[in-house]
This record gives sequence, C-alpha cells and structure tokens, in this order.
Amino acid sequence: MPQFNANTKDMQFVLHDVLKISESGLPGYEEMERDFTEAVLDAAGKVSSEVLAPLNASGDAEGCVLENGVVRTPKGFDAAFEAMKEGGWTALDCDPEYGGQGMPYVLNCAVGEMFVSANMAFNMYQGLTHGAYSAIHAHGTDEQKAKYLPKMVSCEWTGTMNLTEPHCGTDLGMMRTKAEPQDDGSYKITGQKIFISAGEHDLADNIIHLVLAKAPGGGEGTKGISLFIVPKFLVNEDGSLGDRNAVSVGKIEEKMGIHANSTCVMNYDGATGWLLGDLHKGMRAMFTMMNEARLGVGLQGYAVAEAAYQNAVAYAKDRLQGRAVTGAENPNGPADPLIVHPDIRRNLMDQKSFVEGARAFTLWGAHLIDRSHKANDADAEGLISLMTPVIKGFLTDKGFDSAVQAQQVYGGHGYIEEWGMSQFVRDARIAMIYEGANGVQALDLVGRKLAQDGGKHVMAFFEMIKAECKAHDADERMKPFTDALKTASKQLQAAGMFFMQNGMKNPNAALSGSYDFMHLMGHVCLGLMWTRMAAAAHAALDGGASDKAFYEGKIATGRYYMARQLPACAMHLARIESGADPVMALADDQF
Amino acid sequence: MPQFNANTKDMQFVLHDVLKISESGLPGYEEMERDFTEAVLDAAGKVSSEVLAPLNASGDAEGCVLENGVVRTPKGFDAAFEAMKEGGWTALDCDPEYGGQGMPYVLNCAVGEMFVSANMAFNMYQGLTHGAYSAIHAHGTDEQKAKYLPKMVSCEWTGTMNLTEPHCGTDLGMMRTKAEPQDDGSYKITGQKIFISAGEHDLADNIIHLVLAKAPGGGEGTKGISLFIVPKFLVNEDGSLGDRNAVSVGKIEEKMGIHANSTCVMNYDGATGWLLGDLHKGMRAMFTMMNEARLGVGLQGYAVAEAAYQNAVAYAKDRLQGRAVTGAENPNGPADPLIVHPDIRRNLMDQKSFVEGARAFTLWGAHLIDRSHKANDADAEGLISLMTPVIKGFLTDKGFDSAVQAQQVYGGHGYIEEWGMSQFVRDARIAMIYEGANGVQALDLVGRKLAQDGGKHVMAFFEMIKAECKAHDADERMKPFTDALKTASKQLQAAGMFFMQNGMKNPNAALSGSYDFMHLMGHVCLGLMWTRMAAAAHAALDGGASDKAFYEGKIATGRYYMARQLPACAMHLARIESGADPVMALADDQF
Repeated sequence: MPQFNANTKDMQFVLHDVLKISESGLPGYEEMERDFTEAVLDAAGKVSSEVLAPLNASGDAEGCVLENGVVRTPKGFDAAFEAMKEGGWTALDCDPEYGGQGMPYVLNCAVGEMFVSANMAFNMYQGLTHGAYSAIHAHGTDEQKAKYLPKMVSCEWTGTMNLTEPHCGTDLGMMRTKAEPQDDGSYKITGQKIFISAGEHDLADNIIHLVLAKAPGGGEGTKGISLFIVPKFLVNEDGSLGDRNAVSVGKIEEKMGIHANSTCVMNYDGATGWLLGDLHKGMRAMFTMMNEARLGVGLQGYAVAEAAYQNAVAYAKDRLQGRAVTGAENPNGPADPLIVHPDIRRNLMDQKSFVEGARAFTLWGAHLIDRSHKANDADAEGLISLMTPVIKGFLTDKGFDSAVQAQQVYGGHGYIEEWGMSQFVRDARIAMIYEGANGVQALDLVGRKLAQDGGKHVMAFFEMIKAECKAHDADERMKPFTDALKTASKQLQAAGMFFMQNGMKNPNAALSGSYDFMHLMGHVCLGLMWTRMAAAAHAALDGGASDKAFYEGKIATGRYYMARQLPACAMHLARIESGADPVMALADDQF
Repeated sequence: MPQFNANTKDMQFVLHDVLKISESGLPGYEEMERDFTEAVLDAAGKVSSEVLAPLNASGDAEGCVLENGVVRTPKGFDAAFEAMKEGGWTALDCDPEYGGQGMPYVLNCAVGEMFVSANMAFNMYQGLTHGAYSAIHAHGTDEQKAKYLPKMVSCEWTGTMNLTEPHCGTDLGMMRTKAEPQDDGSYKITGQKIFISAGEHDLADNIIHLVLAKAPGGGEGTKGISLFIVPKFLVNEDGSLGDRNAVSVGKIEEKMGIHANSTCVMNYDGATGWLLGDLHKGMRAMFTMMNEARLGVGLQGYAVAEAAYQNAVAYAKDRLQGRAVTGAENPNGPADPLIVHPDIRRNLMDQKSFVEGARAFTLWGAHLIDRSHKANDADAEGLISLMTPVIKGFLTDKGFDSAVQAQQVYGGHGYIEEWGMSQFVRDARIAMIYEGANGVQALDLVGRKLAQDGGKHVMAFFEMIKAECKAHDADERMKPFTDALKTASKQLQAAGMFFMQNGMKNPNAALSGSYDFMHLMGHVCLGLMWTRMAAAAHAALDGGASDKAFYEGKIATGRYYMARQLPACAMHLARIESGADPVMALADDQF
C-alpha cells in the first residue's frame, strides 16, 4: 500500500525563504512566523499520513454506494471526517465571525496540499464545502450567512456546486433548470444537474446545494442565470433542521477514479431555494469564486503527483534490478537499486522538479489571492486572474503526466491496483477536466486574460521577470537560471506578439495556439519560481544554513528544470507560429 | 457505448500506395493485390466491429474471475473466440505446413490492428498464442512442431510466455525458477511466474506455457537460462490430452485495465517440461521473437488510440457546445458542434496525425520483418532491429497520450466509465510497460542498437532519409515535408554525435538522454513516413485518383505533423545535450 509523508520542510521553504510571508504585512499574517506555520503544518501532516492516507486505497476499492436514495461513503470516512472537524481543519482560513480561524489562504493551501496528497477523494467533501462557504460569504445576505455559514465552517453541513446539465457543461447558456419565484420570496427549482461532487453522502446532517438556474425575465444565454441556495433539509428559524427538500440523487456515476467521492446526478423537483446574490447575476457570483476553485484544482494536480513521486522514490531505492553502468553500487546484493539507472533518475527528476516548482507557483498564487482579498491589491488580483488558467491547466496536465511517470518506475507492478500507483493516475486525470476542462482554461487565458485591462497584467508579469533576472545580474551562480528564464520569457513574448499580429484578422490563428501558449506560460512561471527558489537557497547557504544538502539539492533540482524542461518553450512557440492553417485545414468529413 | 469501424481505406493506402507490397517480389506476396487485401481487410473489419467491439466494454466491466482454480472469461468471449477460429483469423500468417494460411506478416498486422482497436484484451488470447507459436516454430524439433503447432495455429490450444518472477522482470539473471533434468529427457520445472497474460482461462482445451528456467550447469546470470514447453495437459503420442500437469494459477491480478485478459500468477510445482531450443540458450530463443512481439505492442499503442480517436471525432461532431469564434456554423441549433473550435481540432489533429503516421511506421516495420524472414534480407533485419525499440517505446507512449487526448474531448463524460473513453486510456497504459518497459526500450536503442554492426543500420537509416528528401527535390509541394525532415534528421544525428563524443568517457551522459533519443527518433521516423505518404498522395492525385478528399486530407494531416510535432525534436536534442550532470546531480537521500 502506498505511503505518504507530508513534505512540510519544502512548504516551509516556500512560505518563508521564498514568499517570506511573515514579512508581507498583510492583516492576519502577523503571526505567520516559521515556528507557528511549522506547528500547523506538522499537525496537518500527522492527520494526513495517519488518518487520511490509510483510507485512500480502501476508499478507492470500495467507492460510494447508493441504496434507497442514501449514499454510503467508504468504511472509515465518517470517523476521519469527525477527526477533521474536531481538529478544526475545515475552518482554517474561514471568517472568525462564523467560527473560522481566520488564517491566511496561503496556509490553508499548504495544509490542503497534504490532505489532497493523502486522500484526494476524501478531501473533496470539505473542499466543495469551502467553495460553497466562499460563495455564500461573498454574496449572501447577513441572514443567509448567519443561517448557513457556522455549520459549513465546522462541516456539520457540507456544500455543493451545481452547474453542469446533461446537454451543457462549458456552454451554460443552454441551461434548462428553472427557478420559479414564489410569493414568499423563495423559488421553486426544477431540473437535472450532473457531475455533482459530494451531491449526496452520509458524512453530514445537511447538504447546502448552490444551484445555477434560470429565473424568468433574465433573457437568453448566460444572462438569465441566477444562483440559488437549495438545502437538502430546510432550516428552521432556530437553526434546527426542518422538512426534507424536493432534491434527490438520481444515481452516482461509475468513474475512472476518485471513487470515494460521490459524483451524483441530482434531481430538483420543485425544490425550495433562495436567491444568492443578485437576480440574473449568477454567473458573476460563480466567477468570483473561480480563481480560488481553479487554484484548488491546480493544487490537486501536483498534490497527487507529490504522493505518487514519494512512492516512486521509495520503490526506486528498494527494488533491485540490473547494475549501474558505471560499476556495481550494491556489490554485495544480487543487483543495484533502480535509482542507480540514469533513466530512472531522469524520470524522478522530472517529477521532483515539477512538483516543487508547482508548489511554489500555487502558494505564490494563493498569496496573491490573500493580497487581493485582505489588502484590496488590484495588481495582485489582476495577476492572479491571469495566472489562474495556467495554474489550473498546466499543473493538472503536468501533474497527471508526473503521476504516469511515477507509475512507470514500478514496471508491471505499477499496473496492478494493489500497489496504488494506478489510483494516483486515475485520480489525477479528473483535475484536467473539471472546474473547466483544460482547453477552456487555454481559451480563457488567450481569449480573455491576456488582453484584460489592456494587457496590463501580462506586461506586469514580463516586468517582474525582467526585474528578477536583473536582481541576480551580479551573481554568476544564478546564470543558468536567469539565462534560461530570459530565453523562455522572450519566447512567451514572441507568442503573444504572434497572437496580436494575427489574431485580429483571424481569431483562429490565436486560438489554434492557445493550448501551447498555456503550456509555454506554465514553463515560464515554473522557471521564474525556480529562479526565486535558487536565489533563496543560495541566500540560505550564504547565511550559513545548517541543512546544506537540502538547499544544494534545491539548486540542483532547479538547474534540472531549467536545462531539461524549459527547452519545451521553443517547441510550443514553433507550434504557435505555425498558425491556424495546419489546424483548420480539414473539412469535418475528412476527420 | 463506443463504436469501432475499421479504417481499411487507410490501411489499403499504406499497403499499396506507400509500401507497394504487391510489387515487392517477396515469396507469398504475389497475390497481395489491392482487391485481395481489401477483401481480407473488409472481412476482418466486419468481425472487429460486429463480434469483438461489442464485447469490449462488457469485458472490461466483468473482468476475469478465478474460482476453484478455473478462470472464467467474460460473457460472450467463448463464442467470439470460436468465430475467430472458424474465420481462420488465428492462422493468417502461420506456416501452411501446420494449417496456417501463409500470408505475409504485414497483412496479419493490418488485420491485427483492427482486432486490437475493437477489443485489445480479447485479442491478447490469440496474440500470446501467436508468440508461442513463433517460438516453437523457430526453435522446436520436428516432433515438437508436429505435436503443438497445428492446435496452436487453430487456437484450439493457446500459448503463454513466462518470464517475470516476483523479484525480477527486466533483470532476468536473478531468475529462481529451476529445471531439473529427468531420465526420460524431460525436466521438472519448479518456481513462480507472475504477470502471465492468458495464463489460465476457459477458451481453449489446453494451454502451452513457454517457461524460462534455470537448468544445472549453465552458470550465473542470464547465461544459465533455458526455455521449456510446459503444457497444462500433457499431450499423448496420438495427440489426445493426457494427465493434468503440475502447473496451476495462484491468483489473477486486479489491474488498471485489460480486465478481460487474465493476468495470472502461475505456480510450477515440479511440472513436466521439455527443452525448447538449445540448453542454456533460452534468452537467445526468446530474443528471436522479440522484434515481432515488441512490434505487436507498438501496434497496440496506436490501435487503441485509433479506436479512441474515432469516438472523439464522433463526439466532437455530435456534441453542441459554444459557438465558432468566426461566426455560428450551426445557426439553427442551440450551439455549434465541438469540432468548430480550434483547440478541439488541434486535439483531433494531434491524434489523427499520430495514428496514421504510426500505422505506416508499424506496417513498414512488419514489411521489414517479412523481408528479413522471407528473403533473408540482412539489411532489413538490421533495420527492423534498430527500429523495434522505437516502434515499441514511442508508439506506446504517444498512443497513450493520444487516448488521453481523445478522452479530453468528452469533457466530464470522458471520466465516466459508461462512455468507454476511460477504458481506452486504462488499456493503452499497459503497452508502455509490458514486453520491456519503455525505459528499457530506450536503453536497448541507445546502449545496443545504435552501435550494432558498427553503426551500420543507423547510418543506412540516415542515408534512406537523405535519399527520400533528394527524390522530392524538384517537387515544390514537398518542401514542407523535406525541409522539416532534414532538420529533424540533422537533430537526430547531432544527438547521436553527442553520445559518441561523451558516452565513452561517461556512459551516464548517453543514458541520461536515452529516453529523449527514443522520442526524437520516433518523430524522425514518423516524419519520414509522412513524407512518403504525402508523396504517395500527390502521386495518386497526379494520376487522377477519384477520391480527392482522401488524398488531400492525407497531405494536410501530414503537414500538420511536420509543422506541429517535429518541433519536439529540437527540445529532445536540447535535453540530450544537457548531458548527465542535471540528471545525476542528487545523492540518493536528496530525492
């Protein structure tokens, strides 16, 4: 069975050596000193490896079962969910007014990474609740907040997001679910929603569904959509549970992975709901949570890859097979461990350099969200809005690839379920799809985010890279980083230029390259992260840090990324510059 | 449920327009005219779509069940296996002396591609039998051949290959299974083998296991290994079945995919076996089948991708979502079909250009095997020996990626098992692992095949590319192909040069780049194939071919591959030229 041990040391490095969060001066960050975050991360790590990880494989094998309208989660999930609630882990960054602990989002993300690594499907129950909490917190009336949030912060009640219908996912304008206004100010919600994660289960007393539906008078397309709160059990004035609402689970889907999370078809048969936020502004209400939700999925991408990587390393050190080409390294054993072989190292270095770069990228993104929320920093908001599709799309694509590579280290055993590597791959696959399929992320990036606010944010990003490189001009040791980053950044700019020059007269010329642009930008972002991490590691070593092996390993891993991953940028640029013709040449019936 | 329709038109194009098999003058190729192969392919296509494909999803869902030592295959498999036998499909390229039809291997591969596309797990029962048939045919005594081959050609009996043990896969020198010589010339085989595909099942009266084991006196490592025939039921002099042999199935593995093929732990408890081929030369006997077996796995890589692609195209044409950025293409419908979107086309073109290139590459490889076997063509043998790790490693990696892309077209539905896309991905995954994990293929390519016969074959390959480009010098229409191919070929040569200059003093410098070299060479091979296919398509159009859309689509698809896939070559070269340092920098405990 696979093992998991939280990599809190690397998280501490990112939070303090790289992001220097305790010096950021944000409200709520004052107490984020090394010792404090270490204590929090250690405690979360303990829960992850001792409570959540042991239920990962069994949860996958058992899955969720629907019987007589009731969904049974796998054995042990209820006790683990209690432990999460008791430990206050569901409330970490929530508003203290509703029982939360008010810690920074960035710390919540670091903690969440471990929970996802340990048991992605399990963590979704609270993850979805957090999303619904955020929506109500941002858009609810005081009364709605008082009614729902305390129980959602504690996860006594969980939450869901209901967008997709059988005939529409990305294109929500075609939505058919209807909301009919009632005299008492409530609405009757009728329609079918699919792919509803944690739509029904046995871990909470109530489930607060947030449902997109069309209320009369809003017009065609997405303009007519509003967001509604539809609780499974109606909530009485005194906060006690009232009648069962007319919402039920139609079936649970058989999926490729995340078996332990119930993915439901939900039927709303005139269910009672209340408007959340403004009428006909449901899409806007959803989108204010989008950055956070998509960052959370990007995090899943590398968090599962981290778990897979840890096991691949352990197997590579343990499994004896073949001899090092430069001479036996385990001469008294029947063979050398796999890790002596250069191609196994290449594989492991691919994983390691990705996961650590992705962690820095995601926590930086979370820090930007904190800046935007807690300090009303519009530049931070613009930057994270630009980065969000990259975090989501690039990190989930590469996270999946990374899990596949980890599985490959196991040879035939990687294909056998009992070794657990197949689950990492199967679980990681969904992150490329949900919360906006990665092609939609690329479209969002190239079609909207690049030009947002007159291209201000992407220009700021290029300036940031320039400044970063300049800051290390005098440091010869940083040349492998800054040289590679400069080249990659120029390639990204050239791609942007190509879109500007060609996209106006032919939008297909830009959109044919959108996916490559997302990956090109992802590499540039990780190149920037590795440059920062290398600089931080050098600074720590220069300052006499005792753990030399850690910081030197960090620099070496960064050099690997720059030397062996950034060359992908030129490939993506070449693809982009080939334009629309190769992509659009065939008539439909030539496929 | 996914559909499958054999792409016989494209196979005909490769066999006749590109490979011109009927003009090759090989024994047995005389009757391989267009009409004849079309009739064979159409008939095989009918079996594939009508008999095998309908059992693919149900076979995956049911899997194989072990009860009281008996393995039950999924419902309908026995009838389908009967249909395959009755149709003579198991005997297509087998020796007529033993009941085979004596057709070229290349035709067997084209037919096999459809069977794999339709039902990979099912086709393995006969595929493994064919491998065992080939081993006995190449190394058996006349008596052994007469005893076993006729029943294996007809698949009344099936076959297996037993190499792997729990503690050794790639490194067979550590093998523990023992063979003790008996007075009657037989051996007693004792040991445990794992990952034995079709090791036990209910589709045949007898199973002929080929087992690698160590007989006394052979020395250490792989030198002491011999190959043995160990039938499930001993065979009497008159050909009837005798006693049950001391071989039994220990368990069947729960795998990520190919659920309908029984992957068995096999226990040999003093089972009676007979030496096949020379004593202590078992590895050599195995290796003579290796090219064929590995080509068969490379074929699986793209055959599954073909099936996934077909379904992705159908879904992209059917699913309405969003509007074309250049204006509605389905103005009377609620939305346009997915296929209007440039990023969906990019995705589909990636798949199409890969699958068609891979088909040409594999059938060319099969044709080389025919040349080597039927005309004792040593150059063809050397060339296919060089190409084999590329066919196996590159086509299975890219085939898996391609299936993942097909799944992505479905959005959330791609993740739900009932749509069938998950199965393609899960099934395709094994091809990267078995018959030598792809890292081992890369090692074989760079560590052995490049330098084989003094580098003669790789030099011949470069000459072939040069000649191909030269042949089209006067044809302006071919420039996008020959220019890109020349560049890629130079990059491949530069990579080989880097290995020569650095690999001698530091073998890790070569082996750190082995995987990238395999992919770089794969792209060059597909670039060569697309150049040949484009030339053949132009020739057909120039000759007044009526199906202009097909040939023009072929050229456009090739241009896509050259413009958008060959830029990967520069990336692989850059990675290779970064050498061993980035890969080998970390100490084991820094991972």
